[in-house]
Amino acid sequence: MALKTIPRSPLAPQDFPKLAPIDGLGLHVYATGSRYRHRDDLLVITLPEKAKIAGVFTNSSMPSAAVDLCKAHLKESKGRVRAIVVNAGIANAFTGKQGQASAETVSAACASLLGVDACNVYMASTGVIGQDLDPSPLVSAMLAGLDKNENRQDWLSAAKAICTTDTFAKGATGTAKFGKHRVNINVISKGSGMIAPDMATMLAFGFTDAALPAGLLQKLIRDVNDESFNAITVDGDTSTSDTFLFCATGEKALGGAPLRSVNDPRLGHFKKELRRVIQDVAIQIACDGEGATKLMTIDIKGAQNDTAARKIALAIGNSPLVKTAIAGEDANWGRIVMAIGKSGECADRDKLGIKIGGHLVARKGRAIEGYDETLVAEHMRTPHISIEADVGVGKGSARVWACDLTHGYISINADYRS
Amino acid sequence: MALKTIPRSPLAPQDFPKLAPIDGLGLHVYATGSRYRHRDDLLVITLPEKAKIAGVFTNSSMPSAAVDLCKAHLKESKGRVRAIVVNAGIANAFTGKQGQASAETVSAACASLLGVDACNVYMASTGVIGQDLDPSPLVSAMLAGLDKNENRQDWLSAAKAICTTDTFAKGATGTAKFGKHRVNINVISKGSGMIAPDMATMLAFGFTDAALPAGLLQKLIRDVNDESFNAITVDGDTSTSDTFLFCATGEKALGGAPLRSVNDPRLGHFKKELRRVIQDVAIQIACDGEGATKLMTIDIKGAQNDTAARKIALAIGNSPLVKTAIAGEDANWGRIVMAIGKSGECADRDKLGIKIGGHLVARKGRAIEGYDETLVAEHMRTPHISIEADVGVGKGSARVWACDLTHGYISINADYRS
Repeated sequence: MALKTIPRSPLAPQDFPKLAPIDGLGLHVYATGSRYRHRDDLLVITLPEKAKIAGVFTNSSMPSAAVDLCKAHLKESKGRVRAIVVNAGIANAFTGKQGQASAETVSAACASLLGVDACNVYMASTGVIGQDLDPSPLVSAMLAGLDKNENRQDWLSAAKAICTTDTFAKGATGTAKFGKHRVNINVISKGSGMIAPDMATMLAFGFTDAALPAGLLQKLIRDVNDESFNAITVDGDTSTSDTFLFCATGEKALGGAPLRSVNDPRLGHFKKELRRVIQDVAIQIACDGEGATKLMTIDIKGAQNDTAARKIALAIGNSPLVKTAIAGEDANWGRIVMAIGKSGECADRDKLGIKIGGHLVARKGRAIEGYDETLVAEHMRTPHISIEADVGVGKGSARVWACDLTHGYISINADYRS
Repeated sequence: MALKTIPRSPLAPQDFPKLAPIDGLGLHVYATGSRYRHRDDLLVITLPEKAKIAGVFTNSSMPSAAVDLCKAHLKESKGRVRAIVVNAGIANAFTGKQGQASAETVSAACASLLGVDACNVYMASTGVIGQDLDPSPLVSAMLAGLDKNENRQDWLSAAKAICTTDTFAKGATGTAKFGKHRVNINVISKGSGMIAPDMATMLAFGFTDAALPAGLLQKLIRDVNDESFNAITVDGDTSTSDTFLFCATGEKALGGAPLRSVNDPRLGHFKKELRRVIQDVAIQIACDGEGATKLMTIDIKGAQNDTAARKIALAIGNSPLVKTAIAGEDANWGRIVMAIGKSGECADRDKLGIKIGGHLVARKGRAIEGYDETLVAEHMRTPHISIEADVGVGKGSARVWACDLTHGYISINADYRS
């Protein structure tokens, strides 16, 4: 299948970062030819025996076969993990029982090659919806290559192998302190590029060499997810396959009493660094939104609670009228008022204040007479747009990242015939 | 202010319909020059003493001054009405206390000229947000013209006077039987065109000459609203000013016992005709969505209840990915699956069936192998696209109308600098 070449997003970072090695982890990439030609499209990540895993998944009521498999394996394995298999090109979503069988065949083959329990192998698939996934090329590739067990960690190749219509590979890295110990945190991700008949999928895979119990890992991931992957939006559409898996290889023992609570003060720096790294890749996804030319950072305060604040911020970030105004470099704060008004969350019209690029443009439910429009106009011409609003009813706050809506989005999603 | 000329929507009806006269009603149009030049921009509708009114309004937490005024007057007057004043060009939204004072000045001036109670005059405003509405040109126009009290009912001129960036005037008409009596129903509307820095507003004004009590009218309007104005979408954005007012002039007595319940069998034909007329103008609004080239009719069945079905249908109609696929004439049912999945409403993936243009493309959670793609492709090239889905969990059903998302939308909303 011929795919259009989409130019690299103008918001892409200069380079893929240098990711630190994670002890005990192996990265294996293959070109299976399942759908794409002349590129890697299969990634197998192997993990040591002590490794633990946590995951969060799409809220879609139409989850893919891989999402169903991950949820079942997470439960069955009690958070143990020996491998993650990721294929790009075919999402294996809306494929019925046959899709389920394909996912099971691939993960079982991987488990058998590694000599581990089937439920310790996880899977993620991204690509076209409704098309059957033939397990054979994936199994053949693993048969030929997995026994080599090469442990060089080529993170860029791994990040590239899971891309579909992404215009750049996405990764981020950090180092956290646990007392005298230092542990690494790496994340790679893909999304949210999309081309007919492909379905956007947000996939992210994170790793640390710290020894952390599975239950704790799950809580950490759930919290950070709300401030990262759940706080970005391209077009408000949600895929059948969104998957974020996070593994702790356990190779670096932290010493001391076992960690039991996410509120343990020893976790302080790790949590901070984890959030920073995961927000980094999440923002990269927003920057790679189809046709994106600008990144919006939307800060809401004064909401009834943080959840309400996020919902208001997402209403702004998803509003086609706000997004087109940003694309047009038009400081149209009236559309921001409209988006706040339609969010369904409590806001006080007569106390509402709005800043664009740090400049107050509306206060107490009215435009500020004679605010310096040239300063705001100058900000609108930059690629990073800041929108702040105080909705005047409480103490809830949230930050969300979104991209603009341009002719590029229409070209990518409408001008293509399957 | 120079406004771009937007070409007439390809989905516009051939002609404005011939609306029957409504006994006791007067239509008065004026060119005030408030914002637009060389066109009418003020409509005053006068009504006889017996007239009753009902209204539904935007759910926005940022309502315009006119919306606040209407709600207050509806309550205070107990459903009595002598006039509706509508101005186009300035929405008088997000204008604080000054905006409230402007709306009160205009409606009070109209009441004084007509010699009626201030609370019997209603107002609607559409146009730019955040700009103060100077009441003087509106009051001056009414002073010069309202005493003439000309009663020729030029519905086309009235429909044109309330337009902003609409590409055609919108109206519909019907005749309902009440036993031996016949009553007329007329509706004019505007929306949902929008151009920076204008804010889309959906306004609709309906009239019948039947004698109906205000409480009954309110119930009738609320019911029909869910199947008409609340069942159309252009971009999912909701204005600060959406207003639908419906008046019964009371000039045609219906005889018999007083009508008290919406379930009175004598109302049967009236309700049917009312729904048809109001759906007609609602669909005209969807057809005039910015850049629209195709109208989608989305039918959902098998949902938990009708509200859930409407939410699923709106998730499809608002999905940028579905809308761009329709624009691209691509029968991308995978995106329909995605939109159903993200709606937040219950749906059974493994029972889901989808029809496009009446042709079954997916059944029981899988694509139908070898369905005739040429027939579906042929349907996709027509301007009226039908999407049907059975989500397999209950008996709820709903129909929603939406338009596609094209380069035209981006051009209208982003390519303009204020």
